[in-house]
Amino acid sequence: MNKTNGLSLSLADLAERLGATLVGDGKRCIGGLATLSDAGSSDISFLANKAYLKYLANTNAAAVLLHPAHAADCPAKTARLELDNPYLAYAELSRLFDPLTMQASSGIHATAFVAEDVAVGRDVEVGPHAVIEAGAILNDDVIVGAGSVVGQQSSIGAGSRLHANVTVSHGVVIGKRAILHSGCVIGGDGFGFAHDGGRWHKIAQLGGVVLGDDVEVGSCSSIDRGALDDTRIGNGVKIDSQVQIAHNVHVGDHSALAGCVGIAGSTRVGRHCMLGGGVGLSGHITLCDGVQITGMSLVTNSITEPGVYSSGTGAMSNGLWRKNAVRFKQLDEIARRVTRLERQGRSE
Amino acid sequence: MNKTNGLSLSLADLAERLGATLVGDGKRCIGGLATLSDAGSSDISFLANKAYLKYLANTNAAAVLLHPAHAADCPAKTARLELDNPYLAYAELSRLFDPLTMQASSGIHATAFVAEDVAVGRDVEVGPHAVIEAGAILNDDVIVGAGSVVGQQSSIGAGSRLHANVTVSHGVVIGKRAILHSGCVIGGDGFGFAHDGGRWHKIAQLGGVVLGDDVEVGSCSSIDRGALDDTRIGNGVKIDSQVQIAHNVHVGDHSALAGCVGIAGSTRVGRHCMLGGGVGLSGHITLCDGVQITGMSLVTNSITEPGVYSSGTGAMSNGLWRKNAVRFKQLDEIARRVTRLERQGRSE
Amino acid sequence: MNKTNGLSLSLADLAERLGATLVGDGKRCIGGLATLSDAGSSDISFLANKAYLKYLANTNAAAVLLHPAHAADCPAKTARLELDNPYLAYAELSRLFDPLTMQASSGIHATAFVAEDVAVGRDVEVGPHAVIEAGAILNDDVIVGAGSVVGQQSSIGAGSRLHANVTVSHGVVIGKRAILHSGCVIGGDGFGFAHDGGRWHKIAQLGGVVLGDDVEVGSCSSIDRGALDDTRIGNGVKIDSQVQIAHNVHVGDHSALAGCVGIAGSTRVGRHCMLGGGVGLSGHITLCDGVQITGMSLVTNSITEPGVYSSGTGAMSNGLWRKNAVRFKQLDEIARRVTRLERQGRSE
Repeated sequence: MNKTNGLSLSLADLAERLGATLVGDGKRCIGGLATLSDAGSSDISFLANKAYLKYLANTNAAAVLLHPAHAADCPAKTARLELDNPYLAYAELSRLFDPLTMQASSGIHATAFVAEDVAVGRDVEVGPHAVIEAGAILNDDVIVGAGSVVGQQSSIGAGSRLHANVTVSHGVVIGKRAILHSGCVIGGDGFGFAHDGGRWHKIAQLGGVVLGDDVEVGSCSSIDRGALDDTRIGNGVKIDSQVQIAHNVHVGDHSALAGCVGIAGSTRVGRHCMLGGGVGLSGHITLCDGVQITGMSLVTNSITEPGVYSSGTGAMSNGLWRKNAVRFKQLDEIARRVTRLERQGRSE
Repeated sequence: MNKTNGLSLSLADLAERLGATLVGDGKRCIGGLATLSDAGSSDISFLANKAYLKYLANTNAAAVLLHPAHAADCPAKTARLELDNPYLAYAELSRLFDPLTMQASSGIHATAFVAEDVAVGRDVEVGPHAVIEAGAILNDDVIVGAGSVVGQQSSIGAGSRLHANVTVSHGVVIGKRAILHSGCVIGGDGFGFAHDGGRWHKIAQLGGVVLGDDVEVGSCSSIDRGALDDTRIGNGVKIDSQVQIAHNVHVGDHSALAGCVGIAGSTRVGRHCMLGGGVGLSGHITLCDGVQITGMSLVTNSITEPGVYSSGTGAMSNGLWRKNAVRFKQLDEIARRVTRLERQGRSE
Repeated sequence: MNKTNGLSLSLADLAERLGATLVGDGKRCIGGLATLSDAGSSDISFLANKAYLKYLANTNAAAVLLHPAHAADCPAKTARLELDNPYLAYAELSRLFDPLTMQASSGIHATAFVAEDVAVGRDVEVGPHAVIEAGAILNDDVIVGAGSVVGQQSSIGAGSRLHANVTVSHGVVIGKRAILHSGCVIGGDGFGFAHDGGRWHKIAQLGGVVLGDDVEVGSCSSIDRGALDDTRIGNGVKIDSQVQIAHNVHVGDHSALAGCVGIAGSTRVGRHCMLGGGVGLSGHITLCDGVQITGMSLVTNSITEPGVYSSGTGAMSNGLWRKNAVRFKQLDEIARRVTRLERQGRSE
C-alpha cells in the first residue's frame, strides 16, 4: 500500500504549518515521510533521537525536521526544518500524509444493517456488514468499519473511527475522536459472581463503560462493563493491544497503557500514569497521578507517591537462574542465618 | 442505557423470592438496584462487605439486603431484607433487573446466514449478519449475537447466549446456559508442530472443544481445540477476558480463571480451583482440586495439595528494585558465602 | 464432529507416503488417527514419547508409527510403521485425515462483499458475510472464513486460510500457505505517540505488516503495523494464541512464539528462536538466532549468545512466598551484611 496519500506540499507550507524555521528552498515539494535511511528525494524525514544521528549525514531526504542544536550535523544539500520538538512535528506530519485520513466518507454501505431508530449524524460512514443496533447514536463524522457491531443504546462521539470487526456492546458511551482497533471489545460483562454452595452465581453487569474524548484502544483489547456503576476511561487515555480492563476500573486522563496490561476490578489509575507492557494491577487498589510501572511488574498495593516502580527479576541464563530461583525459596531462612551470624560476631 | 428493565416489584414479593426476612413496608415498590451511595428512593441496595458499612447510615435506598448482624446499623427509614448471604441475594436481583434478560426473542434476522441443514430449536434468536454453518445445532432459547459465527457441526446448548462477534469453530460442543462474550474464540487450532530439519511441520488439530453447562467465557479469550482428544471445560467454570487455554487442557467443574490467565497444553486443573489474573500454568502438569494461585504467578510443576500458591516478587520503587534484582543474580553465591561464614564460625 | 474425513488408505500406501518400513498386513485399511489408548481397530496411532510407552502393549490400534528401537515393545497383533521420526509422520497423517483439508472450494458466498476491483485467483473461497475491500488481492486457493475482513490493498498469498472473523487491515502482505485463526488482527496501528504538554499526540502508523510464507497466527493474536517501515514476520514462523507483536518488530525465520507472548516495538528476534508462554521482550532489543526463553520471563536487554534464558521465581506456598518476597526487598542490604561479616572474619 502506498504510505502516502498523494498530497504534495511545499517546504515553506510545511514550515508554516509546523511553526518551524526553514533553512533551504521553500518551493521544493514534499510527497511523503520516511526514516533518515529510507527517505528518497521527495520525502521529509526527522531526527528525534541521538541514536539515529549516524544516519543524518548520508540521508537522501529532501528535508529533515530537527532541533536547532543539530543544525550543524545536517548535510548542506538537505533542507532543515528547525523546531524544539521534532518528534511532535513528525507526529503531525504522519497524520497529514496518512492515506486513511484523506478518504471521503462513503456513507452507509448497502450491506450494513442499521436499526430503524438509530440516530445518524452528518458524514457518517458504516462499512459492509457492520451492525448498528436499536437506539444507538452515531455522531457526525463517525466511521464504523466492516463487520463492526454497535450495541443497543450505545453512543459513538463525533469524529470517532471504529476499525473492522470492533464490538461496542450495549449501553456504552464513546467520546469524541476515539480510535478503536479491530477485535477490541468495549462493554463485555465484568467478571462478577457470588459464591455459594461451591458454585458461582452470575451477577448481571448492569453498569456500562464510558470513554472520554481522544481515547485509543488497541486491537483485541477488552474493557469490561461495570457491575452497577460504570467503568471509566478518562480523556486522552491511550491503550495498546491485548489489554484487559476489568469492571469498575477508572483510568485517569492522559494515562498510557502498553500491550498486555491487565487491571483487575475497581482499581483506580491516576492521571498521567504509564503502565509498561504486561503490567498487572490487583483489584481495589489506587495509583496516584504520575505513576510509572515498568514492564511485567505486578502491583498488589496502592501507590501514593509518583515515581517509577518495578517487580520481578531480570533474565539470566537458565543454568544460573535455576540455582538462584531455588535460593529464592530459602531467602527468608538465609536472611535469618545472616542475622544469627551478626549476633554471634557481636557476642564474641 | 437504563440499568433496569422496567420491572417493579414489591418488597414483600422480593423478600419471598429471596427467602429474606423483611423489616419494613412490604407494599413499597422497587424498580432498580444500586450501590448504597448511588441508590435512589425506588432502588434496593445491599451490604455484603464491611468496608461499605460507612455508606449505610446515609443511603437513600428504599431497602437494603443485609445480614441480620448488621440490622442495628441500618437507618430506621430504610427497609431491611435480612438474609445469610446478601451478596448472593444481590446476584439474584441483578439478574432479575437485567435489561437483557427481559427481551423477547426476535427470531432469525433477515440478514443472518443459516445453512440449510442447521437444526434450530424453539425461541432461537440469530442476530444480524451472524453465520450458522452446515450441520450446526442451535438448541432451544439460544441467542447468537450480531456477526457471530457457529462453525460446521458445532452444537450450542439450550439457553446459551453468544454475544456479538463470537467465533465457535467447527466440531465444538457448548453446554447449556453458556455465556460467551464478544471476541472470544472457541476451537481455534492448538499450537502443535513437529520439528524436523529446522522447520515446524503442522499437526492438524483433529480434536474439538467440549464446554460443560453454565460456563462463561470473557471477551477476547481463546480456548483451543485438541490435537486428537478434546479440550474440556467442566460445568460451572467461569473464565474471564483475555484468557488462553491451550489444546487438550481439562479444567474441572466450578473453577474460576481471572483475566489474562494462560494455560499450556495438556495441563489438568482440578475442581474448585481459582487462578488469579495473569497466572501461567506450564504444559503437562496437574493441579489438584481446591488450588488457588495468586495473580501473575507461574506454575511449572504439578500441585498435589489444596492451598494458596504464589511466585514472583512484590513491586517496589525502581531504584530499590534495580539493586535487589542485581543481587538476585548473585543469590546462589550469597547463600554459599553465608554457609562458609557459618562453617568458619563453628571451626573457630 | 467426525475427526476423520472419510479417507481410507491401506497400510502399504501409508508406509510408502511416509517412507516407513511396514511390518504387518499391507492391505489392511486405515480410516483414522488416534492416541494409543483411544485408537480403535481401524485407526493408526503413534509412539513419539517414552512416557506413552505404557499404553503400547494394550492398544487396539490397527497399526502404530514408531522408531525401530521400540519394535520389540509393540504387540504382535499390531502392525508397525517404523521410521526415524514418528512424531513428524504423525504430523503428516494428521493433515491427511483432517476433515477441513478435503472440502472442495465453495467459491464466493452470495452474502460476501467483494469490492469491484479485487483480484481473485483460482479456486478462491470467500465465506458468508466476509468483506474484501478495494484493491485487495486473493491469490489461488485462498480461503477466507465467514465474517473475516481483508482491508484495502492487502494481499493474501496462495493457499492461505483465514478462519472466521479474522481481520487483515489495509496494506498488509500475507505470504503463501498462511493459517490465520479466528479473532486475530494483522495490521492494527502500532502504539506510537509524541508526548507534549502532558498529552499524547497520535503518530499515524504508515508502515504495513509483511508475513513470510508458511506463517501461522493463533486466535485473538495481534500483529501491529509499522510506524514508517513494516513489521516483518519471517518464513515458517509459528505464533500461538493471545500474542502481541508491536510495530516494527522483526521475527526471524522458523521461530516459534507460544501463547500470551508480548514483544514491544522495534525489537528483533532471530531465526530459530523459541519464546515460551507469556514471555515479554522489551522494545528496541535484539535476540540472536537460536535463543530460547522459558515461560513468563521478561527480557529487557539484548541477547547475543544462543541458549536458554529465564527470569522470575518458581511458585511456592503462599505462606513461604510472603516471607521470601519480603526478603527480596531487603536483598541488596542482606548481601552487604554478608560482605561485612566476611570482612570482619578476615580482620579478626
